[in-house]
Amino acid sequence: MRDVVEIGLSKSARRGYHLDDIAIVPTRRTRDVDDVSTNWQLDAYPFKIPCVAHPSDATMSPATAVALGRLGGLGVLNVEGLWTRYADPAKILEELAGLDDDDPATARLQEAYAEPIKPELIGERVKEIREGGVTVAVRVSPQHTLALAPVILDAGVDILVIQGTLVSAEHVSTTDEPLNLKEFIADLDLPVIVGGCTNYQTALHLMRTGAAGVIVGIGADEWSTTDRVLGIRVPMATAIADAADARRDYLDETGGRYVHIIADGNIQTSGDIAKALGCGADAVMVGEPLSRADSSPAGGAWWHSAASHPKLPRGSFGSAEPTLGSLEKVLYGPSEDPDGALNLFGGLRRAMAKCGYRDLKEFQKVGLVLDK
Amino acid sequence: MRDVVEIGLSKSARRGYHLDDIAIVPTRRTRDVDDVSTNWQLDAYPFKIPCVAHPSDATMSPATAVALGRLGGLGVLNVEGLWTRYADPAKILEELAGLDDDDPATARLQEAYAEPIKPELIGERVKEIREGGVTVAVRVSPQHTLALAPVILDAGVDILVIQGTLVSAEHVSTTDEPLNLKEFIADLDLPVIVGGCTNYQTALHLMRTGAAGVIVGIGADEWSTTDRVLGIRVPMATAIADAADARRDYLDETGGRYVHIIADGNIQTSGDIAKALGCGADAVMVGEPLSRADSSPAGGAWWHSAASHPKLPRGSFGSAEPTLGSLEKVLYGPSEDPDGALNLFGGLRRAMAKCGYRDLKEFQKVGLVLDK
Amino acid sequence: MRDVVEIGLSKSARRGYHLDDIAIVPTRRTRDVDDVSTNWQLDAYPFKIPCVAHPSDATMSPATAVALGRLGGLGVLNVEGLWTRYADPAKILEELAGLDDDDPATARLQEAYAEPIKPELIGERVKEIREGGVTVAVRVSPQHTLALAPVILDAGVDILVIQGTLVSAEHVSTTDEPLNLKEFIADLDLPVIVGGCTNYQTALHLMRTGAAGVIVGIGADEWSTTDRVLGIRVPMATAIADAADARRDYLDETGGRYVHIIADGNIQTSGDIAKALGCGADAVMVGEPLSRADSSPAGGAWWHSAASHPKLPRGSFGSAEPTLGSLEKVLYGPSEDPDGALNLFGGLRRAMAKCGYRDLKEFQKVGLVLDK
Amino acid sequence: MRDVVEIGLSKSARRGYHLDDIAIVPTRRTRDVDDVSTNWQLDAYPFKIPCVAHPSDATMSPATAVALGRLGGLGVLNVEGLWTRYADPAKILEELAGLDDDDPATARLQEAYAEPIKPELIGERVKEIREGGVTVAVRVSPQHTLALAPVILDAGVDILVIQGTLVSAEHVSTTDEPLNLKEFIADLDLPVIVGGCTNYQTALHLMRTGAAGVIVGIGADEWSTTDRVLGIRVPMATAIADAADARRDYLDETGGRYVHIIADGNIQTSGDIAKALGCGADAVMVGEPLSRADSSPAGGAWWHSAASHPKLPRGSFGSAEPTLGSLEKVLYGPSEDPDGALNLFGGLRRAMAKCGYRDLKEFQKVGLVLDK
Repeated sequence: MRDVVEIGLSKSARRGYHLDDIAIVPTRRTRDVDDVSTNWQLDAYPFKIPCVAHPSDATMSPATAVALGRLGGLGVLNVEGLWTRYADPAKILEELAGLDDDDPATARLQEAYAEPIKPELIGERVKEIREGGVTVAVRVSPQHTLALAPVILDAGVDILVIQGTLVSAEHVSTTDEPLNLKEFIADLDLPVIVGGCTNYQTALHLMRTGAAGVIVGIGADEWSTTDRVLGIRVPMATAIADAADARRDYLDETGGRYVHIIADGNIQTSGDIAKALGCGADAVMVGEPLSRADSSPAGGAWWHSAASHPKLPRGSFGSAEPTLGSLEKVLYGPSEDPDGALNLFGGLRRAMAKCGYRDLKEFQKVGLVLDK
Repeated sequence: MRDVVEIGLSKSARRGYHLDDIAIVPTRRTRDVDDVSTNWQLDAYPFKIPCVAHPSDATMSPATAVALGRLGGLGVLNVEGLWTRYADPAKILEELAGLDDDDPATARLQEAYAEPIKPELIGERVKEIREGGVTVAVRVSPQHTLALAPVILDAGVDILVIQGTLVSAEHVSTTDEPLNLKEFIADLDLPVIVGGCTNYQTALHLMRTGAAGVIVGIGADEWSTTDRVLGIRVPMATAIADAADARRDYLDETGGRYVHIIADGNIQTSGDIAKALGCGADAVMVGEPLSRADSSPAGGAWWHSAASHPKLPRGSFGSAEPTLGSLEKVLYGPSEDPDGALNLFGGLRRAMAKCGYRDLKEFQKVGLVLDK
Repeated sequence: MRDVVEIGLSKSARRGYHLDDIAIVPTRRTRDVDDVSTNWQLDAYPFKIPCVAHPSDATMSPATAVALGRLGGLGVLNVEGLWTRYADPAKILEELAGLDDDDPATARLQEAYAEPIKPELIGERVKEIREGGVTVAVRVSPQHTLALAPVILDAGVDILVIQGTLVSAEHVSTTDEPLNLKEFIADLDLPVIVGGCTNYQTALHLMRTGAAGVIVGIGADEWSTTDRVLGIRVPMATAIADAADARRDYLDETGGRYVHIIADGNIQTSGDIAKALGCGADAVMVGEPLSRADSSPAGGAWWHSAASHPKLPRGSFGSAEPTLGSLEKVLYGPSEDPDGALNLFGGLRRAMAKCGYRDLKEFQKVGLVLDK
Repeated sequence: MRDVVEIGLSKSARRGYHLDDIAIVPTRRTRDVDDVSTNWQLDAYPFKIPCVAHPSDATMSPATAVALGRLGGLGVLNVEGLWTRYADPAKILEELAGLDDDDPATARLQEAYAEPIKPELIGERVKEIREGGVTVAVRVSPQHTLALAPVILDAGVDILVIQGTLVSAEHVSTTDEPLNLKEFIADLDLPVIVGGCTNYQTALHLMRTGAAGVIVGIGADEWSTTDRVLGIRVPMATAIADAADARRDYLDETGGRYVHIIADGNIQTSGDIAKALGCGADAVMVGEPLSRADSSPAGGAWWHSAASHPKLPRGSFGSAEPTLGSLEKVLYGPSEDPDGALNLFGGLRRAMAKCGYRDLKEFQKVGLVLDK
């Protein structure tokens, strides 16, 4: 059991650790980097790398979702984003690409996202991705799942991602009929990824809804302000390790149903990816790092979905920085950047080799050191 | 019991935690934000939000006290501040609004507050607030309580706030007759809020004076220098949780007298408010964040009362920064600021909803994580 | 007993705490500031404040030693400093006052201190101080004590300060006859202050030499680089509390000999002074803060003795900054500086009052909180 | 045993400490600095100082390897560096010396190191060093050891350094015949230094290969980005102390074979050297600090070997800064730099003297304090 600390006489807290607080410890064996596999499979869908795109409009367009899929990852388009609000969001994306730190970027985001969602565009976007010949995944929020599901399912997606900052298996409402995840998922015949969540209990409950994958974390990075706005901060190393324990317990209680854990938060570099998997994740959600690719829809700018919230924005706008190369280079190198922003999965592969592991499942057992 | 650490062979210390050291942990339930209530009631006075203004002249004028009251919070005017020293402090406030970092701001504050208090102005200010139709509260220091109480009570306030940096139930003096809080409060027929204090023992003793509310903390924020000047620093998460334990013990020893804990320190964002309440506070004192409202008396400048101390100032002057919008926007949004400075209580409400709680009293039980 | 931590399988370390890691905790009583005494007495010499000057040429000239003595503290002149190397060091001090960050200040210091000590000047300087009518104290290094003691004692000082960065009761040398502190002190009929030291054992051994006071710490402040150069860093809160335990044990083993602990390190503000005394010190050595006085010999520049070491300098040169007022203002205010650099001992007095203590000996029992 | 911390329900980590987290604690004895010896001997080779050069082209040319040897340390030339790729690397080194922060330095390094190694140059370089009359040591990577060993041995080196970022005693490969260190070393009749490694187990296994010295650490310094790229970070104080325990256990299991521990990581100042030896190292690898010598091959620029990796660079380029003096001054002073960058081993000697130790082996027992 984890440390429980007395904050004061009437209140205690569990201690949590961030990915930055830990590091990987190589053990006595090393291995050739070419003998290492980063293959990952979710349900029937195989991937060359454990990479799921965080569904931000800053990185995911139909075109980049296809590009990522062809390179071996899983692109995810937000069906509540700009691509389903505008027939052609190019001009808006261009404008966002041009905003700098002095512009009232949050207000501009709020304006852009005030445009209503056009359900007919959902089918069109899905078709564009499907024509790319890759696994098709879209993200919908829990609040709009019941309303948008029919059109999404009609459009024919492979994987459905139901994602909010925080999703629970039990949403309470006195006014709306809330989404019953368990019933909803049971009725579908496609794999569902659901989250984010932050601890053992919520992760276990989300697994029990029948989801194929559970998102752990709230997508926080240095542009995220959820902590300042809501007082919520997720120590990812702890959250992942807790969820991995839920995965094991759920495996046991179901006699063999393995639910994938997808870590979404504080993934900036190849080293972060290695640490998240070393804590027990099956895959990582990659957000801002994909905005460094030349093909990035907003020219390198970056924002979270929550950054455009009409009343309570929770994310800073990251103005466009010079991009670093092709998406392939971001994922597989070669890198000329010493800071771990390029060759994200080549870096993972090398970390695995330095520790002597052959595949991702083995690598979840890697030793860790805590130095903060 | 809390951690006791050996500082050295002859000395130990209790470990304390700041609001920044902790974060809120959402649990398995979520709730509609519209189903969440932030109502708070002190004695007979109901409030829409658990917001008490820190009585600084930088934010509290008769006009802003009325404005805050109308919006559902509790304004508090300092009867030892500029409004009772000057018939018209407008010119001084304007000058302070114009000071920048190169000006000798502390000396200017000391000068401005060297003007004697005019008791006749107290009645006038109270009348201005009362005419606004809101709950009337004023702050007086413990040293001047005996002298100023008659005129304050004559003026007819609803709530009296007796506040010094640190107030004890037992002040010792060889020269003056010290204020006996217990007797003083017993003689009054209006609710008294008293503080600040920093630990279980002092909080409990202040509760036993008959106070309706106890202020926990010393109002520290990034402009406060009490630590450098006096060596006193209050880890607020611990101080609040300790005081909440005193509240429970006092409730037990009196068979049901519930004394409110008002947290005063390190409240800068909506996230901080959520954390303070999550540690067990009933309400928060809000200081500098109110200076970001357009109606702020000194144009956005900020200072503590102690910053004008004639011999030992304990606070830096914060020069005026551009204000962010109306007071209503500061409290209720909509926000275009991603950093938690706007929509302070909308942020609180959303944090409560993400954790599945309905009201403030329930929310005091929210889970915490310690990550520093 | 203090925490012992395993650094690695073959090595453990004791945990230590800095003054910055702790803060003072006010308790349930407060007291009038005018009822608080900061009186301190060493042997037969009474002082109004527990203030011993760190013997740097940047702050201590014969004139400022007199000024400090008249204001109630203890000035200490370094008999191995500029005043005994030059008949008139005014020109050198003026030059040092003019050096800025781009100048090769360390080399200039080394040059200035390369001039040999003139023993005849020692008598002259002592006479200047004595004529000021104050307690006369000078500092000599352990290495030069045997050589310089005769001329120092002839000159007629009241208190002798034998101070090196680190002094032990047992110095081993194969070439020189080392100073035997115990015999040396026994032969003197004046009180000796000796140090610095950093832990219980060394403090106890220094007490057993017969010293009247033991310096704890190595005078580190933000200009000190002993950590980078020697790997030695002293957590002052722990060092003081350990030495205070040695004081108590020595008091017991001698049946009543009370040796004073003078804290020398990380004393920058009035808050630091309060914390050092709260950890158990009897007095503090004040270094750089005295350089902020108008009368500062080098116009506000600051350097440690070790900063001029000919081969291994261990201190950065602090270029002259604008001074803040008279020495009296530095010690007793009034202050217009919110950062605790003025009214150093008024700040101490107020901290004592806020905690309800009457005198320094009582204040050593004040409660502490650890928040780092 | 060391602290084991629960990161989350399914994962724990051992706690590790950096050199910056600890400091040396002087004890009750002090000693004359002239009575202290820093002598070190590896196999048959005596050295005046426990200094092994980190084999970077930024500091090690044939000429500087000779210079370091003459001054009492051990120079190490990288036989996979610029000196064996180019008959005359002068022009390239000059160009690197001229690069500034805006240049694409990593790409330029990659280009420079893309030139193939010329085995014939190895003999030539070794001859240059041997003619300098010093102990000859070269570094080769584990991957190229089998291929390059014949020419290296033919050239006639005294000490062979087999060094990769991370070396294990058991490298697994499905394609190449991996280097069997144990057999390889057994066949040689010269002492081998091998590493880096990071923990007890790997260190012990490397000792069992028959190595004379084991490198602990991965050479990390502020220019290293291994953490960001691979998620691997080595708390050096812990790694050294763990390896020292392996050294003792190996001494016991072999009935007397003493393997030297050479610490390679976070050695920037004389204080760092003292701390590394105080943790149990026999010698330190010095990297960037040697680049401050006037004779530095690239004019003061600094880079790691891994910084030029063709696909996954792991080190920032440090542009040339003004050098500080001769190599002798860097090692032995006199210093006019207060920050511990000059007189590296004079600083060590003084630290030993302040703690009363006579030689390096004794100094490994010095007391430590943990203050972070």
